[in-house]
This record gives sequence, C-alpha cells and structure tokens, in this order.
Amino acid sequence: MGYNPKVGAIAASLIRAIAAKKTPDSIDLGLGEPTLLPQQRFIDAAARWAAVHGLRYTVNAGDHALRERIAAHYAYPGMNAARNVCITTGSQEAVYVAIKTLLDPAADEMLVVTPAFPAYAKIAQLEGVAHRQLDLAEDDDFRYDVDRILDALGPSTRLLVIGSPANPTGRILRDAQARRLAAGLLDRAGPPIWVLQDEIYRELTYIDDAGFVANYYPHTIVANSLSKSNALTGMRLGWLIAPDDPIEQLVKTHSWVTATANTFAQRVAYEIFGEPGALQEQGAWYRERHALVEAALAASGLRYVPVDGAFYACVRIPDGSDSLAAALELVERRGVVAIPGRIFGDTLEGWLRLTWVAPLDQFEEGLSRIAAL
Amino acid sequence: MGYNPKVGAIAASLIRAIAAKKTPDSIDLGLGEPTLLPQQRFIDAAARWAAVHGLRYTVNAGDHALRERIAAHYAYPGMNAARNVCITTGSQEAVYVAIKTLLDPAADEMLVVTPAFPAYAKIAQLEGVAHRQLDLAEDDDFRYDVDRILDALGPSTRLLVIGSPANPTGRILRDAQARRLAAGLLDRAGPPIWVLQDEIYRELTYIDDAGFVANYYPHTIVANSLSKSNALTGMRLGWLIAPDDPIEQLVKTHSWVTATANTFAQRVAYEIFGEPGALQEQGAWYRERHALVEAALAASGLRYVPVDGAFYACVRIPDGSDSLAAALELVERRGVVAIPGRIFGDTLEGWLRLTWVAPLDQFEEGLSRIAAL
Repeated sequence: MGYNPKVGAIAASLIRAIAAKKTPDSIDLGLGEPTLLPQQRFIDAAARWAAVHGLRYTVNAGDHALRERIAAHYAYPGMNAARNVCITTGSQEAVYVAIKTLLDPAADEMLVVTPAFPAYAKIAQLEGVAHRQLDLAEDDDFRYDVDRILDALGPSTRLLVIGSPANPTGRILRDAQARRLAAGLLDRAGPPIWVLQDEIYRELTYIDDAGFVANYYPHTIVANSLSKSNALTGMRLGWLIAPDDPIEQLVKTHSWVTATANTFAQRVAYEIFGEPGALQEQGAWYRERHALVEAALAASGLRYVPVDGAFYACVRIPDGSDSLAAALELVERRGVVAIPGRIFGDTLEGWLRLTWVAPLDQFEEGLSRIAAL
Repeated sequence: MGYNPKVGAIAASLIRAIAAKKTPDSIDLGLGEPTLLPQQRFIDAAARWAAVHGLRYTVNAGDHALRERIAAHYAYPGMNAARNVCITTGSQEAVYVAIKTLLDPAADEMLVVTPAFPAYAKIAQLEGVAHRQLDLAEDDDFRYDVDRILDALGPSTRLLVIGSPANPTGRILRDAQARRLAAGLLDRAGPPIWVLQDEIYRELTYIDDAGFVANYYPHTIVANSLSKSNALTGMRLGWLIAPDDPIEQLVKTHSWVTATANTFAQRVAYEIFGEPGALQEQGAWYRERHALVEAALAASGLRYVPVDGAFYACVRIPDGSDSLAAALELVERRGVVAIPGRIFGDTLEGWLRLTWVAPLDQFEEGLSRIAAL
C-alpha cells in the first residue's frame, strides 16, 4: 500500500534504537527530560478549576488570559500582546508549525546552526523544505560564532534556526552576539530572513548574559515550553511568540494540525505565569548540580564542552572512534546509555551527549566507564 | 515577508467569523462541544497519579497500558494490540497525521463523503493533496449510499474519508452498509484504498445498528477521541487505530508533529478505559435529550434531517436562501448563532447546522426564530 514518500524516507530514530537496549541496571544518561517532580500545586489548582468550569475548547490560539501573561512576561518588542502568542502542544508542535508556515518548499531554504536538536532537520525533511547546517567549530568548543552564521546565509535562506541554550552542547548565544546577529541580518540586502529561536532551556543557564534575538530583531519567532523549566515534559504545553503578521499565519496552521492546545495544561501554565518566580523555582536545583557536574567533568580526564546552560554535557570519545559504535558498546556491554553525537550534526561526530539529571554518583560512574573506552 | 503559499491560501474560518458576532444574549446553537461537565473523578485520579509519578514523556505512540486498553476495547480484527494504537492530540491531530501519512501529494487523491466536518478538506489543501467530495443526496435526507460511494472512487483515489456518526447531519453508516462497503472495496481491481473512519461521535447514537468499517475491511484507519463521549474537548486526547504496517508510518509522522500526547490526558483516558461503562455514562443524557429534540424539530414546521447520532440537527432554510446570509441575519439581527451548511460541502447549501446541547427552551426558541426567516 502507498504512503507519503516523505514519511517513508524518514529513518527510524537512533535514540530510540539505543534506548531499546537499556536494561534495568543501566546508568541512563540518555534522557532528555528532568527527573524532578513538577510543582503539584499548579496541577491541583487546574483540577479544582476543571471541576467548576469543565474542560472546554479554548480558541485556536489558546486562552486569552494565558497568552496575555506569556506576552507580558517576555515583553519582546513588537510582540508583547496576547495576540502575539499561540499556545501549542509542546515546543515540538511550535517548531513544526513554524517551519511549515514560514517556508515555501518550492523556493526557500532553512539554515540550522548545529550541533542542534535533530527535530529541526527532520521536520524540514518531512515538509520537503531544503535545509543546510552551519556547523559550529569543534576547535572553538562549539561556541556560537555570529560572523560564521551571517556568512552562511544564502540567497534562498528564509529561516535561520538557533536553539539557545543549545541541546546538546549547552552553549548559549550571548546578549552581545544577539545584538550583532540582529544588526547583521538588518544590514543584509534582499528579503528579510526569519529567525526561529528555540528557547526551551532559557530558565536553565549558568551564565549571566544569555542573548535573545527577539529583543533586537523584528522578524524573530520564539518557541518555548514548560517542559524543562517546570519538569512538565508530559504536559505538552508550549508556545510560539511572533509579530502580528506571522502569528496569524502560524495560528492558521496550528488550527488544522491540532486545533487547540490542552485546556488543562493551559490552566496549569496560567497558574505558573501568575506566580512570580514559579518559572525559575527549579533553576536553583540545576545551578547547584551544575557546579558538581563541572567538577566531575574536570576530574574525568575526558575532553568536554563547558556547560553554559541546559542539563547536558558533551564529552569526546577517543580520536577515530565512531559515536554510534561507542554508544552501542556502552549500552550493550558497559551499562551506560549515552546519545551518539552524530544525531546532532556532523560536527558532533566523535562526541557523546550525556544528561546529568540522574543521581550524581551515577553520572560520575558513567563518566568513568566512558573514560575507559 | 514570505510564507508557505499553501498556508496563505487557506481562507479564514467562516465559523469563527460568525462566532465573533455573538453577543451575551445570543442563543448559541453553533457550538461543536458538549455542555456537560466531564467526570471529575478521572481528572482527580490523574492529578493524584501525577503527584507520585510526575508527568514525564511517554513513548511517541503513547502509554503502552493505555494503548492496550483502547485496542482491547474496540477489538478490531488485525488491529487489536497495543502496537496498533497511536495516542494523539485530539482527533484533529489523528486526522491530520492520517491524511499526511497515507497520501502522496504528487499522485494520490482523497475522496470525502459529504456533508462532512470541513477539516478533512482543509488538511488536504494544507498538504497539497488533491481531494474530491461525494455529495450524499439532499432528496435522500443525506443518508449514506454505499453504491454511490463505490462509484465515485477514481483511478487515483487512495483514501476514502467517512465521518460516521456524521458531523453535521448526524447520519450513521449502518452495519450492513459497512459490510457492503468493505466487500465492494475488496472486489475492486487495482491497489487497495485506505478508509479513514472518524468515529468521534460513536458513543452518541440513537439507532442500534451503527456500522464500523474496521470490523470488515483490513485497510481501515480509525480516528476517535474522548472529546464528545466524555465532555473532554479541552483534554485533547485522541487516537488512531491502524493495522501494523500503517501504524508504524503514522507514529513516525506523529512523532515529528507533536512528539507525544499529554501524559496527564493519557492517564485520564487510562482511568476511563479501565472503568466499564465510563465511556457510555454520558450517553443517557443525550438519548433523553434526543427524544425531546426530535419532537421540537417535528413541531417547528422546518424541514430537518432525522438525527441518528451526534448532537446536531440540520434544518432547511427557505428555498433560494443563502446559508451564509441566513446565518449572518440570525446572529446579527435575531440573536441566534447557527452554522451555515455550505461549510460542510456544497450539498448542504440551503441548510443550517444547529447544536442541541444548549438548554432545550433555547433550542426551541432558536428553531422558532429560524422558522420566521
């Protein structure tokens, strides 16, 4: 029987293939989600609200009062009203809707700054959109490099995708870099280029000058969610923030893909955005753990990327090793789940991504088994 | 700035244009959702579960235990195992994923039996898939007609979409018709045709012999959700059931569109599918109301389609009237929100769709104002 060939062409997930080999005794450093529990008071408040109001549809873009709170919280110039926000099913749907809406598959190209979360490229592939990678340099420890990003834009590039804080490297675009990127984009001849910044790790940073392009560049679309900041990966509550014109188009796509976001999840988000500090509350745990993780990395003897944000650490495997082979060796014979770097872009081949939300002694034991490869 | 032209080409929703004119005094017969409250015990149970387990990601296809319960509940031949179910963000995502996955935009055509929920055609338009309508006959009160459906299949038709019980007409494919449709499809030469049956109103029926194609035809994909049966429109919990081969492809698409469904919503569904009768509990209210609604329709003097299922009634406006003009007249000057038939297919021009979940006296008053048009 027939299928859409674009769906058929997508390969099975390497992450899943590795996760499938996990045993109950494995040290799991492969997870992409927090191990903390969510703040139960918000879930209980939403349950009490549902008992009175039921769980009806909101309008397609999401509950107006929630959108107002989100818009006001981030207060990005030119997109700080409720109408600039669309609530989505996690940041996955936010990114999906953005790529699908902003690009003409017949003409436009997307440029992704890598190493990056593989979903951007997979979505482009599914939508038939041409995409290229700008590989940040291994010998610069994968720091953002604005000049190289600007140089990489081509005549048909219409969307630049930046995940910052970055999964997998934890690298963060700095404020001065966001300004320079905006200036460079505005100076360019030709039609303006959209920037999609995936800010899903923005509450988990260990530096003081994280940069957000939406503060400086008027053609920015922001994707974010409560998944990482509030240990709510399973709540699937994300959003897009965009200027007036694109948001209308984005809401249209969203309305045919999922209709509306979950009303219960929206109520949880409404409570979180209504309590000052609730978005940042779990950040203290990550900052404390981060200091211990950096010490463990330094003690491991492994080469690693200093962790500016998020909850991952990238470590180098021996020169000439293949990251998939190393990940399979680790999971099959050494009891450690780690993600091969290659899935985040060619530039991360030769590396592994480790999550450090498991108990610290497990992280340390995992590092020593990797160091013994 | 540029966009995907397929998104740009989609017109704004007529339903929303009419809803926007609603005032606090309007009689709202335009709603597409229950007015009952959901069964709070399931929401509270999920909140208690979350307090212990958190709300982590499930695997892409959804929680295995929930999928097992759903598969066993419907027990469709060849698709009665957990692996045959994919949990989605409402039936909207289920339908979106099915159309996107099953059809090659370069070669395949989708046939929709109309009058029908407009999303099927809008999704095809968004995906660049050719689509045609098979209009059920007004002079047959829009009954399903299997011979006409089979005759309408063309050489490039690869997906037949049937919503039964139907939104907007409430018509239901009968069991004998489902058998005949399956036999006709199996007898056809050429590559087999997928059938997508949208069963979202299956718990709200007022006849005894509703037909489900998946019982008889091995290339059926089923979409359904808890939205209508359990007054959980805002919970966005839907699913696809499909044979082994297509389900793998469907899960792949789903994993890039929304990653996974909401874990809280999945837990609510797990509780509902674990309590015998919980899916049907609210059906009693609809059956009682249905008898009163049929009496009110008969007394109104309006021509109407007998209601076999769902919670809508289609009524004829005076010959030669335009359904959009009538809906605007009603909302702007007569205080009634009704949906113009034309959005459900050309064959329903000259009709209005009314929802009958509002208080009965309001429904009766709405009917009398429509009769005075």
